[in-house]
Amino acid sequence: MPESKPPRTLKHATLERLMHYYHYIGEQIAQQSMGTVSSSEIAKLLDTDDTVVRKDMAAIGVRGYPRVGFKADEVLAAIRDVLGFDNAYRAIIIGAGRLGSALASYPGFSRYGLRIDALLDSDPSRAGAIEGGVEVRPLDELESIIEAHNVGLAILTVPAEAAQPLADRMVNAGLRAIWNFAPTSLVVPSGVLVRHEHISVGLAELAYHLNRRDTKEASE
Amino acid sequence: MPESKPPRTLKHATLERLMHYYHYIGEQIAQQSMGTVSSSEIAKLLDTDDTVVRKDMAAIGVRGYPRVGFKADEVLAAIRDVLGFDNAYRAIIIGAGRLGSALASYPGFSRYGLRIDALLDSDPSRAGAIEGGVEVRPLDELESIIEAHNVGLAILTVPAEAAQPLADRMVNAGLRAIWNFAPTSLVVPSGVLVRHEHISVGLAELAYHLNRRDTKEASE
Repeated sequence: MPESKPPRTLKHATLERLMHYYHYIGEQIAQQSMGTVSSSEIAKLLDTDDTVVRKDMAAIGVRGYPRVGFKADEVLAAIRDVLGFDNAYRAIIIGAGRLGSALASYPGFSRYGLRIDALLDSDPSRAGAIEGGVEVRPLDELESIIEAHNVGLAILTVPAEAAQPLADRMVNAGLRAIWNFAPTSLVVPSGVLVRHEHISVGLAELAYHLNRRDTKEASE
Repeated sequence: MPESKPPRTLKHATLERLMHYYHYIGEQIAQQSMGTVSSSEIAKLLDTDDTVVRKDMAAIGVRGYPRVGFKADEVLAAIRDVLGFDNAYRAIIIGAGRLGSALASYPGFSRYGLRIDALLDSDPSRAGAIEGGVEVRPLDELESIIEAHNVGLAILTVPAEAAQPLADRMVNAGLRAIWNFAPTSLVVPSGVLVRHEHISVGLAELAYHLNRRDTKEASE
Protein backbone atom coordinates (compact mmCIF):
# COMPACT_ATOMS: atom_id res chain seq x y z
CA MET A 1 0.00 0.00 0.00
CA PRO A 2 1.46 3.37 -0.93
CA GLU A 3 2.01 6.06 1.70
CA SER A 4 -0.95 8.44 1.67
CA LYS A 5 -2.62 11.20 3.65
CA PRO A 6 -5.36 10.07 6.02
CA PRO A 7 -8.70 10.03 4.18
CA ARG A 8 -10.78 13.10 4.99
CA THR A 9 -14.42 13.29 4.17
CA LEU A 10 -15.40 16.79 3.17
CA LYS A 11 -19.01 17.80 3.44
CA HIS A 12 -21.31 18.96 0.69
CA ALA A 13 -21.23 22.65 1.76
CA THR A 14 -17.42 22.64 2.08
CA LEU A 15 -17.06 21.21 -1.42
CA GLU A 16 -19.32 23.91 -2.84
CA ARG A 17 -17.27 26.60 -1.10
CA LEU A 18 -14.04 25.10 -2.49
CA MET A 19 -15.46 25.49 -5.99
CA HIS A 20 -16.35 29.12 -5.26
CA TYR A 21 -12.84 29.80 -3.89
CA TYR A 22 -11.44 28.24 -7.02
CA HIS A 23 -13.50 30.52 -9.26
CA TYR A 24 -12.87 33.73 -7.38
CA ILE A 25 -9.15 33.23 -6.80
CA GLY A 26 -8.76 32.06 -10.41
CA GLU A 27 -10.58 35.17 -11.67
CA GLN A 28 -8.64 37.57 -9.47
CA ILE A 29 -5.32 36.10 -10.53
CA ALA A 30 -6.28 36.38 -14.19
CA GLN A 31 -7.28 40.02 -13.70
CA GLN A 32 -4.68 41.38 -11.28
CA SER A 33 -1.83 38.85 -11.25
CA MET A 34 -2.30 38.75 -7.48
CA GLY A 35 0.02 36.32 -5.76
CA THR A 36 -1.58 36.13 -2.31
CA VAL A 37 -5.04 36.38 -0.82
CA SER A 38 -6.22 36.75 2.79
CA SER A 39 -9.03 34.78 4.42
CA SER A 40 -10.94 38.02 4.97
CA GLU A 41 -10.72 38.98 1.28
CA ILE A 42 -12.08 35.57 0.28
CA ALA A 43 -14.76 35.74 2.99
CA LYS A 44 -15.88 39.16 1.80
CA LEU A 45 -16.20 38.05 -1.82
CA LEU A 46 -18.26 35.03 -0.82
CA ASP A 47 -20.31 36.73 1.87
CA THR A 48 -19.13 34.34 4.58
CA ASP A 49 -16.96 34.45 7.70
CA ASP A 50 -13.15 34.29 7.68
CA THR A 51 -13.09 31.52 10.30
CA VAL A 52 -15.01 29.37 7.78
CA VAL A 53 -12.41 30.13 5.11
CA ARG A 54 -9.52 29.30 7.45
CA LYS A 55 -11.14 25.98 8.48
CA ASP A 56 -11.70 25.03 4.85
CA MET A 57 -8.07 25.81 3.99
CA ALA A 58 -6.87 23.70 6.92
CA ALA A 59 -9.15 20.84 5.80
CA ILE A 60 -7.44 20.72 2.39
CA GLY A 61 -3.96 21.14 3.88
CA VAL A 62 -3.27 24.74 2.81
CA ARG A 63 -1.15 26.83 5.24
CA GLY A 64 -1.37 30.58 5.60
CA TYR A 65 1.70 32.86 5.88
CA PRO A 66 1.91 35.62 8.54
CA ARG A 67 0.98 39.09 7.26
CA VAL A 68 0.50 37.70 3.73
CA GLY A 69 -2.36 35.22 3.83
CA PHE A 70 -2.59 32.31 1.45
CA LYS A 71 -0.57 31.89 -1.72
CA ALA A 72 -3.09 31.83 -4.53
CA ASP A 73 -1.32 29.15 -6.56
CA GLU A 74 -1.10 26.85 -3.50
CA VAL A 75 -4.83 27.22 -2.84
CA LEU A 76 -5.69 26.50 -6.48
CA ALA A 77 -3.40 23.47 -6.61
CA ALA A 78 -4.84 22.03 -3.38
CA ILE A 79 -8.40 22.41 -4.65
CA ARG A 80 -7.50 20.83 -8.00
CA ASP A 81 -5.97 17.93 -6.09
CA VAL A 82 -8.85 17.38 -3.64
CA LEU A 83 -11.54 17.63 -6.34
CA GLY A 84 -9.53 15.61 -8.84
CA PHE A 85 -9.62 18.16 -11.65
CA ASP A 86 -6.47 16.69 -13.15
CA ASN A 87 -7.79 13.10 -13.17
CA ALA A 88 -9.92 13.12 -16.32
CA TYR A 89 -13.19 11.27 -15.80
CA ARG A 90 -15.71 10.24 -18.39
CA ALA A 91 -19.30 11.37 -18.48
CA ILE A 92 -22.35 10.95 -20.69
CA ILE A 93 -25.43 13.14 -21.04
CA ILE A 94 -28.83 11.45 -21.27
CA GLY A 95 -31.43 13.54 -23.09
CA ALA A 96 -30.41 15.60 -26.15
CA GLY A 97 -33.04 18.30 -25.59
CA ARG A 98 -32.23 21.97 -25.14
CA LEU A 99 -30.61 21.60 -21.72
CA GLY A 100 -28.69 18.43 -22.63
CA SER A 101 -27.39 20.10 -25.80
CA ALA A 102 -26.49 23.29 -23.89
CA LEU A 103 -24.49 21.25 -21.36
CA ALA A 104 -22.77 19.27 -24.15
CA SER A 105 -21.68 22.62 -25.64
CA TYR A 106 -20.37 24.07 -22.39
CA PRO A 107 -16.63 24.58 -22.94
CA GLY A 108 -15.81 24.91 -19.22
CA PHE A 109 -16.28 21.28 -18.12
CA SER A 110 -12.87 20.15 -19.38
CA ARG A 111 -11.23 22.52 -16.87
CA TYR A 112 -12.71 20.35 -14.11
CA GLY A 113 -11.49 17.08 -15.59
CA LEU A 114 -14.89 16.24 -17.07
CA ARG A 115 -14.96 14.73 -20.52
CA ILE A 116 -18.33 14.19 -22.23
CA ASP A 117 -18.12 11.02 -24.30
CA ALA A 118 -21.67 10.76 -25.63
CA LEU A 119 -25.11 12.33 -25.64
CA LEU A 120 -27.88 9.72 -25.63
CA ASP A 121 -31.45 10.29 -26.71
CA SER A 122 -34.59 8.14 -26.76
CA ASP A 123 -35.50 9.44 -30.23
CA PRO A 124 -33.56 7.18 -32.65
CA SER A 125 -33.85 9.77 -35.45
CA ARG A 126 -31.49 12.05 -33.49
CA ALA A 127 -28.65 9.49 -33.61
CA GLY A 128 -25.57 10.68 -35.48
CA ALA A 129 -26.24 14.41 -34.94
CA ILE A 130 -23.40 16.40 -33.35
CA GLU A 131 -24.19 18.75 -30.44
CA GLY A 132 -21.30 20.79 -29.05
CA GLY A 133 -18.82 18.39 -30.60
CA VAL A 134 -20.48 15.34 -29.00
CA GLU A 135 -22.25 12.66 -31.02
CA VAL A 136 -25.88 11.78 -30.24
CA ARG A 137 -26.31 8.01 -29.73
CA PRO A 138 -29.51 5.94 -29.40
CA LEU A 139 -30.56 5.13 -25.85
CA ASP A 140 -30.32 1.36 -26.32
CA GLU A 141 -26.53 1.76 -26.39
CA LEU A 142 -26.58 3.07 -22.80
CA GLU A 143 -25.09 -0.01 -21.10
CA SER A 144 -22.53 -0.70 -23.81
CA ILE A 145 -21.27 2.90 -23.79
CA ILE A 146 -20.95 2.97 -19.97
CA GLU A 147 -18.95 -0.25 -20.02
CA ALA A 148 -16.82 0.50 -23.08
CA HIS A 149 -15.78 4.01 -21.95
CA ASN A 150 -15.64 3.30 -18.19
CA VAL A 151 -18.12 6.14 -17.66
CA GLY A 152 -18.34 7.31 -14.03
CA LEU A 153 -20.88 10.11 -14.27
CA ALA A 154 -24.18 10.56 -16.09
CA ILE A 155 -25.83 13.95 -16.54
CA LEU A 156 -29.57 13.31 -16.65
CA THR A 157 -31.67 15.86 -18.56
CA VAL A 158 -34.82 13.81 -19.22
CA PRO A 159 -38.49 14.26 -18.16
CA ALA A 160 -39.34 13.25 -14.57
CA GLU A 161 -41.08 9.96 -15.47
CA ALA A 162 -38.06 8.71 -17.47
CA ALA A 163 -35.47 9.39 -14.76
CA GLN A 164 -35.76 6.48 -12.28
CA PRO A 165 -35.84 3.63 -14.86
CA LEU A 166 -32.74 5.16 -16.50
CA ALA A 167 -31.01 5.52 -13.12
CA ASP A 168 -31.67 1.82 -12.44
CA ARG A 169 -30.19 0.78 -15.79
CA MET A 170 -27.11 2.98 -15.31
CA VAL A 171 -26.41 1.77 -11.78
CA ASN A 172 -26.65 -1.84 -12.99
CA ALA A 173 -24.13 -0.99 -15.70
CA GLY A 174 -21.64 0.25 -13.06
CA LEU A 175 -22.21 4.00 -13.02
CA ARG A 176 -21.13 5.70 -9.77
CA ALA A 177 -22.53 9.24 -9.90
CA ILE A 178 -25.59 10.97 -11.38
CA TRP A 179 -25.99 14.72 -11.91
CA ASN A 180 -29.77 14.86 -11.96
CA PHE A 181 -31.44 17.77 -13.78
CA ALA A 182 -34.74 15.85 -14.07
CA PRO A 183 -37.40 17.40 -11.80
CA THR A 184 -37.73 14.37 -9.51
CA SER A 185 -35.86 12.53 -6.75
CA LEU A 186 -33.98 9.31 -7.51
CA VAL A 187 -33.50 6.20 -5.39
CA VAL A 188 -30.05 4.60 -5.81
CA PRO A 189 -27.92 2.14 -3.78
CA SER A 190 -25.42 3.54 -1.28
CA GLY A 191 -22.07 4.14 -2.96
CA VAL A 192 -23.77 5.90 -5.88
CA LEU A 193 -23.93 9.67 -5.47
CA VAL A 194 -26.87 11.66 -6.83
CA ARG A 195 -26.62 15.43 -7.04
CA HIS A 196 -30.09 16.83 -7.70
CA GLU A 197 -29.82 20.18 -9.48
CA HIS A 198 -32.91 22.32 -9.01
CA ILE A 199 -32.50 25.27 -11.35
CA SER A 200 -35.19 27.03 -9.34
CA VAL A 201 -33.09 27.11 -6.14
CA GLY A 202 -31.28 30.15 -7.50
CA LEU A 203 -34.63 31.84 -7.93
CA ALA A 204 -35.45 31.71 -4.20
CA GLU A 205 -33.08 34.53 -3.32
CA LEU A 206 -34.03 36.65 -6.35
CA ALA A 207 -37.78 36.22 -5.82
CA TYR A 208 -37.42 37.12 -2.14
CA HIS A 209 -35.46 40.27 -3.03
CA LEU A 210 -38.02 41.37 -5.64
CA ASN A 211 -40.95 40.51 -3.37
CA ARG A 212 -39.54 42.53 -0.44
CA ARG A 213 -38.92 45.55 -2.67
CA ASP A 214 -42.51 45.38 -3.97
CA THR A 215 -43.95 44.96 -0.47
CA LYS A 216 -41.93 47.91 0.83
CA GLU A 217 -42.95 50.15 -2.07
CA ALA A 218 -46.62 49.23 -1.73
CA SER A 219 -46.69 50.14 1.98
CA GLU A 220 -44.86 53.45 1.55
CA MET B 1 -49.81 52.17 6.50
CA PRO B 2 -51.44 48.70 6.50
CA GLU B 3 -50.91 46.37 9.46
CA SER B 4 -48.09 43.97 8.64
CA LYS B 5 -45.71 41.47 10.20
CA PRO B 6 -42.33 42.88 11.22
CA PRO B 7 -39.89 42.67 8.31
CA ARG B 8 -37.57 39.71 8.63
CA THR B 9 -34.43 39.38 6.60
CA LEU B 10 -33.79 35.78 5.66
CA LYS B 11 -30.31 34.72 4.70
CA HIS B 12 -29.15 33.25 1.44
CA ALA B 13 -28.75 29.69 2.84
CA THR B 14 -32.17 29.80 4.53
CA LEU B 15 -33.82 30.88 1.27
CA GLU B 16 -32.19 28.00 -0.59
CA ARG B 17 -33.40 25.53 2.06
CA LEU B 18 -36.93 26.93 1.79
CA MET B 19 -36.88 26.17 -1.94
CA HIS B 20 -35.71 22.62 -1.21
CA TYR B 21 -38.46 22.13 1.41
CA TYR B 22 -40.95 23.39 -1.13
CA HIS B 23 -39.80 20.84 -3.72
CA TYR B 24 -39.62 17.86 -1.41
CA ILE B 25 -42.85 18.48 0.43
CA GLY B 26 -44.56 19.28 -2.88
CA GLU B 27 -43.29 16.03 -4.39
CA GLN B 28 -44.22 13.90 -1.38
CA ILE B 29 -47.73 15.32 -1.31
CA ALA B 30 -48.15 14.64 -5.01
CA GLN B 31 -46.97 11.05 -4.55
CA GLN B 32 -48.49 10.00 -1.23
CA SER B 33 -51.17 12.60 -0.43
CA MET B 34 -49.36 13.05 2.89
CA GLY B 35 -50.96 15.71 5.05
CA THR B 36 -48.24 16.21 7.67
CA VAL B 37 -44.48 16.04 7.82
CA SER B 38 -42.05 16.06 10.77
CA SER B 39 -38.89 18.14 11.03
CA SER B 40 -36.82 14.95 11.19
CA GLU B 41 -38.37 13.61 7.97
CA ILE B 42 -37.54 16.86 6.18
CA ALA B 43 -34.05 16.93 7.72
CA LYS B 44 -33.39 13.37 6.58
CA LEU B 45 -34.43 14.09 2.98
CA LEU B 46 -32.21 17.17 2.84
CA ASP B 47 -29.27 15.74 4.77
CA THR B 48 -29.42 18.42 7.46
CA ASP B 49 -30.30 18.65 11.15
CA ASP B 50 -33.87 18.89 12.49
CA THR B 51 -33.03 21.93 14.63
CA VAL B 52 -32.20 23.77 11.38
CA VAL B 53 -35.58 22.76 9.93
CA ARG B 54 -37.44 23.90 13.06
CA LYS B 55 -35.63 27.27 13.10
CA ASP B 56 -36.44 27.82 9.43
CA MET B 57 -40.11 27.02 10.03
CA ALA B 58 -40.21 29.46 12.96
CA ALA B 59 -38.57 32.14 10.79
CA ILE B 60 -41.39 31.92 8.24
CA GLY B 61 -44.09 31.72 10.93
CA VAL B 62 -45.04 28.04 10.58
CA ARG B 63 -46.09 26.28 13.84
CA GLY B 64 -45.67 22.57 14.49
CA TYR B 65 -48.38 20.39 16.09
CA PRO B 66 -47.52 17.96 18.92
CA ARG B 67 -47.09 14.34 17.76
CA VAL B 68 -47.95 15.35 14.17
CA GLY B 69 -45.30 17.77 12.98
CA PHE B 70 -46.01 20.39 10.37
CA LYS B 71 -49.06 20.53 8.14
CA ALA B 72 -47.73 20.25 4.62
CA ASP B 73 -50.19 22.73 3.11
CA GLU B 74 -49.31 25.33 5.76
CA VAL B 75 -45.58 24.96 5.04
CA LEU B 76 -46.11 25.27 1.29
CA ALA B 77 -48.38 28.32 1.68
CA ALA B 78 -45.90 30.07 4.00
CA ILE B 79 -43.02 29.49 1.56
CA ARG B 80 -45.13 30.73 -1.37
CA ASP B 81 -45.91 33.83 0.65
CA VAL B 82 -42.34 34.59 1.80
CA LEU B 83 -40.81 34.00 -1.63
CA GLY B 84 -43.64 35.82 -3.43
CA PHE B 85 -44.56 32.96 -5.79
CA ASP B 86 -48.07 34.36 -6.17
CA ASN B 87 -46.90 37.90 -7.05
CA ALA B 88 -46.09 37.53 -10.73
CA TYR B 89 -42.89 39.34 -11.65
CA ARG B 90 -41.51 40.05 -15.09
CA ALA B 91 -38.18 38.84 -16.38
CA ILE B 92 -36.15 38.97 -19.57
CA ILE B 93 -33.37 36.70 -20.79
CA ILE B 94 -30.32 38.30 -22.42
CA GLY B 95 -28.54 35.96 -24.82
CA ALA B 96 -30.55 33.63 -27.07
CA GLY B 97 -27.85 30.96 -27.25
CA ARG B 98 -28.39 27.37 -26.15
CA LEU B 99 -28.64 28.12 -22.43
CA GLY B 100 -30.83 31.20 -22.90
CA SER B 101 -33.14 29.24 -25.17
CA ALA B 102 -33.23 26.28 -22.76
CA LEU B 103 -34.21 28.61 -19.90
CA ALA B 104 -36.87 30.32 -22.07
CA SER B 105 -38.36 26.88 -22.69
CA TYR B 106 -38.35 25.78 -19.06
CA PRO B 107 -42.00 25.31 -18.12
CA GLY B 108 -41.43 25.37 -14.37
CA PHE B 109 -40.65 29.09 -13.89
CA SER B 110 -44.31 30.17 -13.92
CA ARG B 111 -44.88 28.08 -10.77
CA TYR B 112 -42.53 30.50 -8.97
CA GLY B 113 -44.26 33.63 -10.23
CA LEU B 114 -41.68 34.24 -12.93
CA ARG B 115 -42.90 35.37 -16.31
CA ILE B 116 -40.40 35.66 -19.19
CA ASP B 117 -41.40 38.61 -21.36
CA ALA B 118 -38.61 38.67 -23.91
CA LEU B 119 -35.38 37.02 -25.02
CA LEU B 120 -32.84 39.57 -26.29
CA ASP B 121 -29.90 38.82 -28.54
CA SER B 122 -27.04 40.89 -29.95
CA ASP B 123 -27.44 39.22 -33.36
CA PRO B 124 -30.16 41.26 -35.12
CA SER B 125 -30.86 38.42 -37.55
CA ARG B 126 -32.29 36.36 -34.63
CA ALA B 127 -35.02 38.96 -33.99
CA GLY B 128 -38.55 37.65 -34.46
CA ALA B 129 -37.66 33.99 -33.83
CA ILE B 130 -39.69 32.23 -31.11
CA GLU B 131 -37.84 30.18 -28.45
CA GLY B 132 -39.99 28.34 -25.91
CA GLY B 133 -42.92 30.63 -26.67
CA VAL B 134 -40.84 33.78 -26.13
CA GLU B 135 -39.98 36.20 -28.93
CA VAL B 136 -36.34 37.09 -29.62
CA ARG B 137 -35.82 40.89 -29.71
CA PRO B 138 -32.76 42.92 -30.77
CA LEU B 139 -30.50 44.07 -27.95
CA ASP B 140 -30.98 47.78 -28.69
CA GLU B 141 -34.53 47.43 -27.33
CA LEU B 142 -33.12 46.51 -23.87
CA GLU B 143 -33.96 49.77 -22.07
CA SER B 144 -37.35 50.24 -23.71
CA ILE B 145 -38.43 46.67 -22.87
CA ILE B 146 -37.33 47.00 -19.21
CA GLU B 147 -39.27 50.25 -18.85
CA ALA B 148 -42.37 49.24 -20.83
CA HIS B 149 -42.85 45.89 -19.04
CA ASN B 150 -41.64 46.97 -15.60
CA VAL B 151 -39.08 44.15 -15.73
CA GLY B 152 -37.54 43.34 -12.32
CA LEU B 153 -35.21 40.48 -13.16
CA ALA B 154 -32.79 39.79 -16.02
CA ILE B 155 -31.35 36.35 -16.70
CA LEU B 156 -27.93 36.89 -18.22
CA THR B 157 -26.60 34.11 -20.49
CA VAL B 158 -23.94 36.00 -22.46
CA PRO B 159 -20.14 35.61 -22.78
CA ALA B 160 -18.05 36.96 -19.88
CA GLU B 161 -16.83 40.10 -21.69
CA ALA B 162 -20.39 41.22 -22.56
CA ALA B 163 -21.79 40.87 -19.04
CA GLN B 164 -20.67 44.02 -17.15
CA PRO B 165 -21.62 46.58 -19.86
CA LEU B 166 -25.06 44.94 -20.08
CA ALA B 167 -25.44 44.97 -16.30
CA ASP B 168 -24.64 48.73 -16.28
CA ARG B 169 -27.27 49.44 -18.95
CA MET B 170 -29.92 47.37 -17.17
CA VAL B 171 -29.29 48.93 -13.77
CA ASN B 172 -29.58 52.40 -15.34
CA ALA B 173 -32.91 51.34 -16.84
CA GLY B 174 -34.23 50.43 -13.38
CA LEU B 175 -33.62 46.69 -13.15
CA ARG B 176 -33.39 45.35 -9.57
CA ALA B 177 -32.08 41.79 -9.85
CA ILE B 178 -29.74 39.83 -12.13
CA TRP B 179 -29.49 36.07 -12.39
CA ASN B 180 -25.97 35.82 -13.79
CA PHE B 181 -25.03 32.71 -15.78
CA ALA B 182 -22.10 34.51 -17.47
CA PRO B 183 -18.76 33.16 -16.18
CA THR B 184 -17.69 36.40 -14.48
CA SER B 185 -18.46 38.56 -11.44
CA LEU B 186 -20.56 41.73 -11.79
CA VAL B 187 -20.30 45.05 -9.97
CA VAL B 188 -23.69 46.66 -9.26
CA PRO B 189 -24.97 49.37 -6.87
CA SER B 190 -26.37 48.29 -3.50
CA GLY B 191 -30.08 47.61 -3.78
CA VAL B 192 -29.53 45.50 -6.90
CA LEU B 193 -29.16 41.78 -6.20
CA VAL B 194 -26.87 39.60 -8.33
CA ARG B 195 -27.09 35.84 -8.04
CA HIS B 196 -24.09 34.29 -9.78
CA GLU B 197 -24.94 30.80 -10.99
CA HIS B 198 -21.85 28.65 -11.45
CA ILE B 199 -23.02 25.50 -13.19
CA SER B 200 -19.75 23.89 -12.12
CA VAL B 201 -20.53 24.17 -8.38
CA GLY B 202 -22.67 21.05 -8.67
CA LEU B 203 -19.66 19.26 -10.11
CA ALA B 204 -17.56 19.76 -6.97
CA GLU B 205 -19.38 17.09 -5.00
CA LEU B 206 -19.56 14.66 -7.93
CA ALA B 207 -15.88 15.08 -8.85
CA TYR B 208 -14.86 14.57 -5.21
CA HIS B 209 -16.93 11.37 -5.00
CA LEU B 210 -15.47 9.97 -8.24
CA ASN B 211 -11.94 11.01 -7.28
CA ARG B 212 -12.14 9.33 -3.85
CA ARG B 213 -13.46 6.12 -5.38
CA ASP B 214 -10.62 6.06 -7.90
CA THR B 215 -8.01 6.81 -5.23
CA LYS B 216 -9.37 4.08 -2.96
CA GLU B 217 -9.44 1.51 -5.76
CA ALA B 218 -5.92 2.41 -6.86
CA SER B 219 -4.52 1.92 -3.34
CA GLU B 220 -6.31 -1.38 -2.71
